Amino acid sequence: MVVGLVETAVPAAKSTVSSAVKKPTTLSSDPIINVARGDPMIYEPYWKKMGDRCKVVIAGDEFMSYFCNAMNLCWFLLPELDNAIRTLHRVVGNAMVDDDRFIVVGNGSTQLFHALLYALSSSNMLEPINVVAAAPFYSSYPEETKFLRSELYKWAGDANCYDKDEPYIEVVTSPNNPDGSIRGTVVNREGGKAIHDLAYYWPQYAPITSKADHDAMLFTFSKATGHAGTRIGWAIVKDKVIAAKMVKFIEVSSIGVSREAQLRAAKVLGFIADDCRNPDVKGENFFEYGRRLMSERWGKLREMGMKSNGVFSLPKYLRDYCKFTGEYTDSNPAFAWLKSREGLNCENLLRDESKIITRAGPSFGGDSTYTRVSMLSRDVEFELLLERLAAVKGTVNGN
Amino acid sequence: MVVGLVETAVPAAKSTVSSAVKKPTTLSSDPIINVARGDPMIYEPYWKKMGDRCKVVIAGDEFMSYFCNAMNLCWFLLPELDNAIRTLHRVVGNAMVDDDRFIVVGNGSTQLFHALLYALSSSNMLEPINVVAAAPFYSSYPEETKFLRSELYKWAGDANCYDKDEPYIEVVTSPNNPDGSIRGTVVNREGGKAIHDLAYYWPQYAPITSKADHDAMLFTFSKATGHAGTRIGWAIVKDKVIAAKMVKFIEVSSIGVSREAQLRAAKVLGFIADDCRNPDVKGENFFEYGRRLMSERWGKLREMGMKSNGVFSLPKYLRDYCKFTGEYTDSNPAFAWLKSREGLNCENLLRDESKIITRAGPSFGGDSTYTRVSMLSRDVEFELLLERLAAVKGTVNGN
Repeated sequence: MVVGLVETAVPAAKSTVSSAVKKPTTLSSDPIINVARGDPMIYEPYWKKMGDRCKVVIAGDEFMSYFCNAMNLCWFLLPELDNAIRTLHRVVGNAMVDDDRFIVVGNGSTQLFHALLYALSSSNMLEPINVVAAAPFYSSYPEETKFLRSELYKWAGDANCYDKDEPYIEVVTSPNNPDGSIRGTVVNREGGKAIHDLAYYWPQYAPITSKADHDAMLFTFSKATGHAGTRIGWAIVKDKVIAAKMVKFIEVSSIGVSREAQLRAAKVLGFIADDCRNPDVKGENFFEYGRRLMSERWGKLREMGMKSNGVFSLPKYLRDYCKFTGEYTDSNPAFAWLKSREGLNCENLLRDESKIITRAGPSFGGDSTYTRVSMLSRDVEFELLLERLAAVKGTVNGN
Repeated sequence: MVVGLVETAVPAAKSTVSSAVKKPTTLSSDPIINVARGDPMIYEPYWKKMGDRCKVVIAGDEFMSYFCNAMNLCWFLLPELDNAIRTLHRVVGNAMVDDDRFIVVGNGSTQLFHALLYALSSSNMLEPINVVAAAPFYSSYPEETKFLRSELYKWAGDANCYDKDEPYIEVVTSPNNPDGSIRGTVVNREGGKAIHDLAYYWPQYAPITSKADHDAMLFTFSKATGHAGTRIGWAIVKDKVIAAKMVKFIEVSSIGVSREAQLRAAKVLGFIADDCRNPDVKGENFFEYGRRLMSERWGKLREMGMKSNGVFSLPKYLRDYCKFTGEYTDSNPAFAWLKSREGLNCENLLRDESKIITRAGPSFGGDSTYTRVSMLSRDVEFELLLERLAAVKGTVNGN
């Protein structure tokens, strides 16, 4: 099995928790808990409950052509998905999607990140453009930038330390992965380019304070709704030339994006938008449900942190006014950026003392007292995680 | 609209033929016929006729995880698709798919071509590996190899002229795109690596003479069955290390392949395999249908060629024994590699005299007396194409 640096690269097989294990933790017999990846299984029960309302049916003769809409700049974008994306952003108020903005669909936002590197770099430059992100940054950015050894762009590390007088692209993730902080660009030089990865800028994770309005913004179906097996991401782009270069990238990489996945994303996003706009429908809408779950999980995790006698600490977030919910809300990030007491290696500690697999701080440009823990696992796995974390004594150093 | 070199890059909008136009060709009012791309609309009526037999239904809570099968080397491959691919190859007899071969799924075979360039090159080498293909070659290979300016691999042109004493990858397309010829490697040096693109090695296009058994073979759903909007391709790979590097590439590029598209491909490929294995089912199986249609079209095209007073000529193919059909059959390639009389520029001639858009010989490493014409368009478009070709006088040179 190939284990890479990508978000999801650690295989799930060994982490399967078959039932709600209640016996005390014994290292030899207990299953491994893998919360290194951000597999968003937390939302599955919601979609199960929605039953047939988000079912899609595709006939054998549908979607035969390479083309969805040859009149559109993004000729492989299903018009229904374009419409559902714009509608949902208008309902949530998290991004500007006026008609002059271009939507480019990709095989996940990962492909769109690559497309943006290509679109924002120039084949006329003698040197590759520098790609930076403020640490701690999403652990896959360095690998995604470096792995093909392109002469168009190169990874240049922590944006906080960037002091070259050269062209650059700054990647800004907000709320940030791994630490949930709300961010803006830090380099801010004239001519600097930016990619805004807003994968987690949805009401279940953070208060929606304003419509994001950046040059190039990335969103992904997986983190918005939990449908990670559907490889759909989208970019909202102001500049037509940049959007056209992204389309070109996706054409040369994969000749577009599967229509079946787009249809399903359109259905689910459209369903959520309808549900949010019709508050008389019984039950919680998806974001209310997600926010409640995430809030409960963060409450439990903070409680565990306080009981841990200083072995662990967690970041603090300011409450802010959320325009979507109409009230002051907390941030409930998709990942916990767990810090252990100084001198401890947090990832090793969890692995060796508790059989909890996490992703170590250094992968994100951070130090080894930190590790990243997914908050999006199934209920049974999350409860077991809490139980094990509470039992950690910090006696195994693991350095 | 971005117009690129990729197979499908020319937008379809202007080429729409709204009805069976029977009036004489007048340049000013007649619609453009775009047969530059290989959009496989020829098969749509067949799938329409199959009705619900290839329908797929996907519930809202299916495929939430990034993982399909964490125990498999290709962890994002749907087991049903793995099974359908192997079964269909066994039924058709066109490729060796013993259990020790690895199946890697991609977002179309285009993504798998990129994955193979990555997997077959080495980050330890000082110089990029040379990528060659014998002219005429598929027009997208050079662009796909060059566009990211990777230091891992570089385009090195026509394999027939390759004389460097350096590592190389030879891309072999058989039956070949654009000219339909049956091919093997031409460089044949020790240590040479090969990618076998077998997109067209199906009974409707060529006699199936043996089970292909190369190190790395590419197939694509779009050309096998006509489902081009479903971006599914697969590689059959002997070496585990190469397969693992390909999986890594697809992980870093797009974190896998949409499950919806895989499910649909599994359904359609499985349906065809069942139909071929149960000859008592009424009606033609898909390959019989496809072969009849392609054979009729080639018959008409050859007739036109003979009537053209030497303006056009077409390649000739040897009949061969097809193990799938159990009889001697002709090649009926997906593209016609049309040659005009010496001194004429074939692509310009068709464009200027007949409003037929094709892809010019030089894109394929050929000369300008050649152009490539898709044989996979809808019936109405194909009939109009024949009518217009028959009327070409060759008086407009267009050089």
